[in-house]
Amino acid sequence: MKINEILSQLNDENIDSMFVYSPENIKYISDFYPSSFAYLIIQDEPILYVNSIDKESAEEKSQIETRDIVKFTEVKDLLKGNIAVENSLDFGLVKYLSDDVSSIKTSEVFYNHRKTKTKEEITKIRNSIGIAENAIKEIDFTSTEKYAAASLEFDMTINGSIKPAFDTIVASGKRSSSPHSETSMNRVETPIVVDWGAKYDYYCSDITRTFIETERQDEIWNIVLEAQKAAIKTIAPGVSCADVDNAARDVITEYGYGEYFIHSTGHGFGLEIHEDPVVSNKVDMLLEENMVITAEPGIYIPGEFGVRIEDDVLVKKNSEVLTTLDKKLDFLL
Amino acid sequence: MKINEILSQLNDENIDSMFVYSPENIKYISDFYPSSFAYLIIQDEPILYVNSIDKESAEEKSQIETRDIVKFTEVKDLLKGNIAVENSLDFGLVKYLSDDVSSIKTSEVFYNHRKTKTKEEITKIRNSIGIAENAIKEIDFTSTEKYAAASLEFDMTINGSIKPAFDTIVASGKRSSSPHSETSMNRVETPIVVDWGAKYDYYCSDITRTFIETERQDEIWNIVLEAQKAAIKTIAPGVSCADVDNAARDVITEYGYGEYFIHSTGHGFGLEIHEDPVVSNKVDMLLEENMVITAEPGIYIPGEFGVRIEDDVLVKKNSEVLTTLDKKLDFLL
Repeated sequence: MKINEILSQLNDENIDSMFVYSPENIKYISDFYPSSFAYLIIQDEPILYVNSIDKESAEEKSQIETRDIVKFTEVKDLLKGNIAVENSLDFGLVKYLSDDVSSIKTSEVFYNHRKTKTKEEITKIRNSIGIAENAIKEIDFTSTEKYAAASLEFDMTINGSIKPAFDTIVASGKRSSSPHSETSMNRVETPIVVDWGAKYDYYCSDITRTFIETERQDEIWNIVLEAQKAAIKTIAPGVSCADVDNAARDVITEYGYGEYFIHSTGHGFGLEIHEDPVVSNKVDMLLEENMVITAEPGIYIPGEFGVRIEDDVLVKKNSEVLTTLDKKLDFLL
Repeated sequence: MKINEILSQLNDENIDSMFVYSPENIKYISDFYPSSFAYLIIQDEPILYVNSIDKESAEEKSQIETRDIVKFTEVKDLLKGNIAVENSLDFGLVKYLSDDVSSIKTSEVFYNHRKTKTKEEITKIRNSIGIAENAIKEIDFTSTEKYAAASLEFDMTINGSIKPAFDTIVASGKRSSSPHSETSMNRVETPIVVDWGAKYDYYCSDITRTFIETERQDEIWNIVLEAQKAAIKTIAPGVSCADVDNAARDVITEYGYGEYFIHSTGHGFGLEIHEDPVVSNKVDMLLEENMVITAEPGIYIPGEFGVRIEDDVLVKKNSEVLTTLDKKLDFLL
């Protein structure tokens, strides 16, 4: 049971009570995703406190005992001994938990557990990827970038995605030269970078394809693909994130585009779209079996265009690329 | 200038440096919404620190000087004197800002300013409402709740919504008896509660309509409408939130359904879907001119069905209902 592992790690950290507020952490441990105000207190008897609005569905789904929420001013009385919170907890809420905020610790217990995925989680990520992959076949490029993104999100939703895993990016023409270009009301040009993902039972997927047309675009696209292949080849338990990033970066640098690869090669994901590890050349963390990470090198030539290719990889002795979509989808153009 | 008002209030609070991290607050003050890691430091010379990915668009849009982000471990050196942060700042980040977290204050300066809207903000909210109102006319009830929600979100997006203001709710039949029902893959039945909103330039809208069929549904619908009218009638500067809530609650209680009105009558919104004030019978806060709030009473009969009607109101001497949509849209069924 996940909760027992968490309790045991908190015990090792000398923490008596952990106050948990992030809906993803609550979902992770209880299987219930709150729609409203809720918090979980982990101590010998873990209890999930939910708003009356959520009472019925929490009782139905939660694997942890549920009770009605207690006013924030009284939460302090529910905690005992050494208290820990999540790094993400709002400072304004931390202040309710103790008269001496400097006594409150932060625990990484959830991040540590969530970075490797259980069998059930991997299945959910596979389903999420499946929804995203099917949807791209319905994308409509005949109008604006926004229209294309909307057509893709529509298809994900009707096929079981709770919502997009993040704001879908459709960045075309010159606008593709920024990796975080805002999807615009401009008509779609080439190349077209599409970065999208679904949420299946709150688990994300994250894919990017670049649709190309000219020879120059094809040249850059091939370098990015070679870089991605080099990165994926290195992915295995025990390999450092920096080594994976450098594998992609070295290829791009060799071709003379190193300065235009302006982000990291990848990141873990699961209930959130960004989870540990960060696959960057500045990160020493070693990959572990059952991490799920993206491999997404890109080249962004200012004033010209950008190309990114992104797939999702399950870290194993023989790592498995979970995305099964063709790298080239230009037939959809 | 907003920034000068903020600086002056911080001065009154005896705060020398405020560290601002919420993208909504950054947007509010700089007009730039970061797509990646960014923070703003407000002191005599306010500076917005952005990721290289955002550099170009920040320089184009921001009304505040922009620089490259500094590593979190070095942010401390940028701050001076009495430091304040937002209530919402992650505790894990607060710890980087001072060796003594108990010395760090929280300031409500943004919440205080954001609860009343400027002319430009009201225009953006109007546009956001317009997008949402037009989209409902395209909703497709012929399939599942998810399909209906997806058809509505699609139409909002192609008409200029950045994304839904919140997860669109389509709760039909018995599922409507929970105000936060998860939009399901079940076929649409009646009544149908649809709660939706757009984001126009990051400004929200928030509307609910309930589509009814039977006499029993109509009976409840009329009570909810009467309650909403009573609430809206009271909305004016200087009136307490509790009075607005009670105006709606009294009507519903008179008809014997008081125990089934299980949430507050409304809430402020703007860049975020929930902002001050909370229009609840437990809140003494007085309404002020140019607040924008929802009026959304509801009756939820367990095991039977629910009805909610929600409109958006601009608080003025003669308050203005910003939504212009008919209360009854049953012709769309």
